[in-house]
Amino acid sequence: MYRYIHAIVLLLAAATALAETPEDRLDAAGYTLPEPTKPVAVYVTRVRTGNLLFLSGHGECGALDDITKGKVGRDLTVAEGKASAEKVGLCMLATIKDELGELSRVKRFVRILGMVNATEEFTAHPQVINGFSELMVVAFGEDGKAARAAVGMASLPSNIAVEIEAIVELHDD
Amino acid sequence: MYRYIHAIVLLLAAATALAETPEDRLDAAGYTLPEPTKPVAVYVTRVRTGNLLFLSGHGECGALDDITKGKVGRDLTVAEGKASAEKVGLCMLATIKDELGELSRVKRFVRILGMVNATEEFTAHPQVINGFSELMVVAFGEDGKAARAAVGMASLPSNIAVEIEAIVELHDD
Amino acid sequence: MYRYIHAIVLLLAAATALAETPEDRLDAAGYTLPEPTKPVAVYVTRVRTGNLLFLSGHGECGALDDITKGKVGRDLTVAEGKASAEKVGLCMLATIKDELGELSRVKRFVRILGMVNATEEFTAHPQVINGFSELMVVAFGEDGKAARAAVGMASLPSNIAVEIEAIVELHDD
Repeated sequence: MYRYIHAIVLLLAAATALAETPEDRLDAAGYTLPEPTKPVAVYVTRVRTGNLLFLSGHGECGALDDITKGKVGRDLTVAEGKASAEKVGLCMLATIKDELGELSRVKRFVRILGMVNATEEFTAHPQVINGFSELMVVAFGEDGKAARAAVGMASLPSNIAVEIEAIVELHDD
Repeated sequence: MYRYIHAIVLLLAAATALAETPEDRLDAAGYTLPEPTKPVAVYVTRVRTGNLLFLSGHGECGALDDITKGKVGRDLTVAEGKASAEKVGLCMLATIKDELGELSRVKRFVRILGMVNATEEFTAHPQVINGFSELMVVAFGEDGKAARAAVGMASLPSNIAVEIEAIVELHDD
Repeated sequence: MYRYIHAIVLLLAAATALAETPEDRLDAAGYTLPEPTKPVAVYVTRVRTGNLLFLSGHGECGALDDITKGKVGRDLTVAEGKASAEKVGLCMLATIKDELGELSRVKRFVRILGMVNATEEFTAHPQVINGFSELMVVAFGEDGKAARAAVGMASLPSNIAVEIEAIVELHDD
């Protein structure tokens, strides 16, 4: 019996070692990227200048009816806000992959502004935005950690719970 | 009669084709740039580093008494907020022209943060900030579209309705 | 008597002329840098890319119990908010020095986002954030003035009064 468990552990370890791309690591952790989002107003979802990629403020991808809405601290718990931030991260990764073809072209996350639709009394913005940042660590390791601000907004478009914008550094071509 | 209309249409098309600079296009659309704004505190209205120009958070140019004030969604309609965002855009263009001499030195808008003085329940931030973005499309075409966030602030300086900061990429010298 | 005063004035002027580094100027003005802050969530306090240094949203350094908390305009006066912004500046300078070794490697402040934990009616955000900006002028002169936005947030982490993020340009190596 032990022999079989040992073999399975070895196989899992080998699989992890082989999971070399961010896409592999996301897949191994059970994540699936959504379809990239389309602009809903007069903007673009990203702009590349030099080796920096600027990402628009992203909400969750998907139909507006399915997106987490409401104020964290009143309509939503911290855990629900964090789950939304993770979905925002998946949506942003879909945009990055759409731009670059391969996520491995990301050198590192440089800066994120994590905006929480929050009450005046809310204080746990970092825990909410960790939902996004922990996902980026799954994909990119330590390079997924950005200079960051995680703050409370009076209101967000369509009353979405979380919106995050980012600057990502790319590997030289 | 048709002959005259046809001639006028041809003349207008020719005028548009000749309107090659952003200044010409703004002028043809009936816009006039205000005097550039002066800092009202310890900052500068823009900083250039490499081929990126960072613009301070801009409100409307002009005397404080004449600037649109109040919360969008309570004191101001979406249309009034959008009109303010357009004036903010004119004010920022005045700063950019003051820095560069010619707006044609702008390669593209990279990123804007559109901050709406909004109620907790407000949801139409993108429509408000479109007032700014549509102006930039008049001036720069598709290059006027930035990576963007359009969000609701608890309060803004002097209770102005809209404040927008930006990063613009410049053509190489 | 006049002779002695004259001598003291000359000595002070000489001391100022010798105070060539930002560290010297801060010291001469009576400021002491705190220990650099540690990340309290999944982020890093700064990221360098090219000759730009991106600083995370900084609050005051120190134990959470000692940090200024509350809403400016309700729990705190403008002067108290401004004093907090100055401490945020000292905390950010500690991070910059930790990264660069010497503050003289800073070429200039490029952009800051000054976030005030403010009521809906608050209007004096620039005066609050001047506490940060005036400190940077002490350290770096005119190069301490950034493109800036100073705005009101619905809420900030742990109910801190002021949070500021920044982009700083570095001298070439």
